[in-house]
Amino acid sequence: MATIKDVSKIANVSVATVSRVLNNNGYVKEETKKKVLAAIEQLNYRPNDVARSLFKGKSKMIALFVPDIRNPFFPELARAVEDNANAHNYTFILCNTDNNSVKELTYLNALLQKSIDGIVIVSNTMSAEQLRDIKVPIVALDRKPNENIPSVTVNNQEGAIQAVQHLKQSGCKYIGHISGPQDISSAKDRTKGYLAVVKEESWFSEDFIHSGNYTYEEAFEAAKNLLTRFPNIDGIFAANDMMAIGALKAAEHLGILVPNDLSIIGFDGIQMGSTTSPALTTMEQPLYTIGKRATEMLLQKIESPEKELVSEEYQVTFIQRSSTKERR
Amino acid sequence: MATIKDVSKIANVSVATVSRVLNNNGYVKEETKKKVLAAIEQLNYRPNDVARSLFKGKSKMIALFVPDIRNPFFPELARAVEDNANAHNYTFILCNTDNNSVKELTYLNALLQKSIDGIVIVSNTMSAEQLRDIKVPIVALDRKPNENIPSVTVNNQEGAIQAVQHLKQSGCKYIGHISGPQDISSAKDRTKGYLAVVKEESWFSEDFIHSGNYTYEEAFEAAKNLLTRFPNIDGIFAANDMMAIGALKAAEHLGILVPNDLSIIGFDGIQMGSTTSPALTTMEQPLYTIGKRATEMLLQKIESPEKELVSEEYQVTFIQRSSTKERR
Repeated sequence: MATIKDVSKIANVSVATVSRVLNNNGYVKEETKKKVLAAIEQLNYRPNDVARSLFKGKSKMIALFVPDIRNPFFPELARAVEDNANAHNYTFILCNTDNNSVKELTYLNALLQKSIDGIVIVSNTMSAEQLRDIKVPIVALDRKPNENIPSVTVNNQEGAIQAVQHLKQSGCKYIGHISGPQDISSAKDRTKGYLAVVKEESWFSEDFIHSGNYTYEEAFEAAKNLLTRFPNIDGIFAANDMMAIGALKAAEHLGILVPNDLSIIGFDGIQMGSTTSPALTTMEQPLYTIGKRATEMLLQKIESPEKELVSEEYQVTFIQRSSTKERR
Repeated sequence: MATIKDVSKIANVSVATVSRVLNNNGYVKEETKKKVLAAIEQLNYRPNDVARSLFKGKSKMIALFVPDIRNPFFPELARAVEDNANAHNYTFILCNTDNNSVKELTYLNALLQKSIDGIVIVSNTMSAEQLRDIKVPIVALDRKPNENIPSVTVNNQEGAIQAVQHLKQSGCKYIGHISGPQDISSAKDRTKGYLAVVKEESWFSEDFIHSGNYTYEEAFEAAKNLLTRFPNIDGIFAANDMMAIGALKAAEHLGILVPNDLSIIGFDGIQMGSTTSPALTTMEQPLYTIGKRATEMLLQKIESPEKELVSEEYQVTFIQRSSTKERR
């Protein structure tokens, strides 16, 4: 294999000059630069990752698309993907897509220009059509944008069933639901789980479901409206922890004591849920594990393109804290 | 300027073949590939960002080093840097350094291999010596690792003085302090601000300062110890919001009512502080603004290397919420 010395001999310059050209450090005459680049080409010398990218079409870079890293759900996933990328000598690119498919496509094109090796996406907007022509491996995390992309998710519907059954079994008689955006698979499946438990109840109507759009602020308003309209509600299942924390705040605002008058249960297991008063009972996702697994699958596909990836589903765990109690 | 058509003519292949070589899509004979690469070289054609990187030593990529993206302080900064990078067509690389200088250097070397254009660092461990030979622009954010790196920070000492004076003026008689790691400039300056206000008080001793290491968990323990040892403490200044939230939890644990028996004030203005019960009074940093500004400075330096960067300091703002009150 050619070395930097071979390049310097052929180009008839010093090794330091070759190094300056390679790293673009210090002044090198245009003439000299050309001689060095020609020698590199002739010897098929791989000076660094950039050249390797050009010759091999591999950049040793992977990206993660998340809607917004400021949402406390995503940093745990980002950390898991980055740790794994780094452990395999891949550089980690982070893109905030704001759930905007135009932004997603713009990022995609920019990354393909950089010979990105693969992408982990948390997206609900990427269609099969948009992704059909993308020639790099893609693994979906947390959400299933479409059936053609291998994904790593959790048992959202089953987890929601467990959450609502817990409320029911602990004595809640009227159980409201703060739902997430129904175009996101996780939110839709959690609402399905809620419905599976309560839809046959005599008290139930669709009015017991208010949308909190997966955000703290909207859930605060949704829970206020829900609890004002149905003062007899004694249990709330929020489709994520941020919304459950908004519901906690709404109850405080209305003078409703949690858990004495009202039990609230969330979903996700973000750290924030353990710092509230009362601390939040929740269905905990193995966030780091699923982020890690999505990255492993992506790297396998990058390194063995013939490998067929199969979607995986992980289990959530019931975490009892102080926002729910036995009410008999 | 050469086009892909020119390349295809010189190499005597179709445009589709050139495209396949450039994007590494589909099969191309090694022989053909070499002809295409030679034509690219001859015409000085810039096929994509990777080739541009090789020829110009520029990658249109910038990186952000943070200790750990899971700490709720960093996502706001990361979002600001990424938004700005993206607006200027730079790709954003995120590195979690765990405050580990070996990890920082490993990242640095890997990124230099990728012809990274510049780096925004949140670091307290990078020495002037380590950075002396780094030929890409670096801007420090939030912390000042050493005097030779231009930085964007806030008025930590002055903000801490304002926080502790607020406690004093609202009637607190014994004010404790949960401090951050004293090797981080922001934490050190905030402790200096606390001392400036209380060190002449008759009751004051160093025992009123307990270290919470900027984390929720350690601050919970520190506040428990502090409040158990000095039950007459009626005000706590925590050097960041995570620690203030830990102190809130410790007070709850000990049956001390906030704000009735104890006022607690934090520093940073992370979103989490507005969701606790009671919501946290704090000194708010303009986090998005400083993240944006550090990126602007970095991009200026990348695009005009002759430019001399000057460090900037932004002001914090007192945000009154419910964890402090007048006690007369």
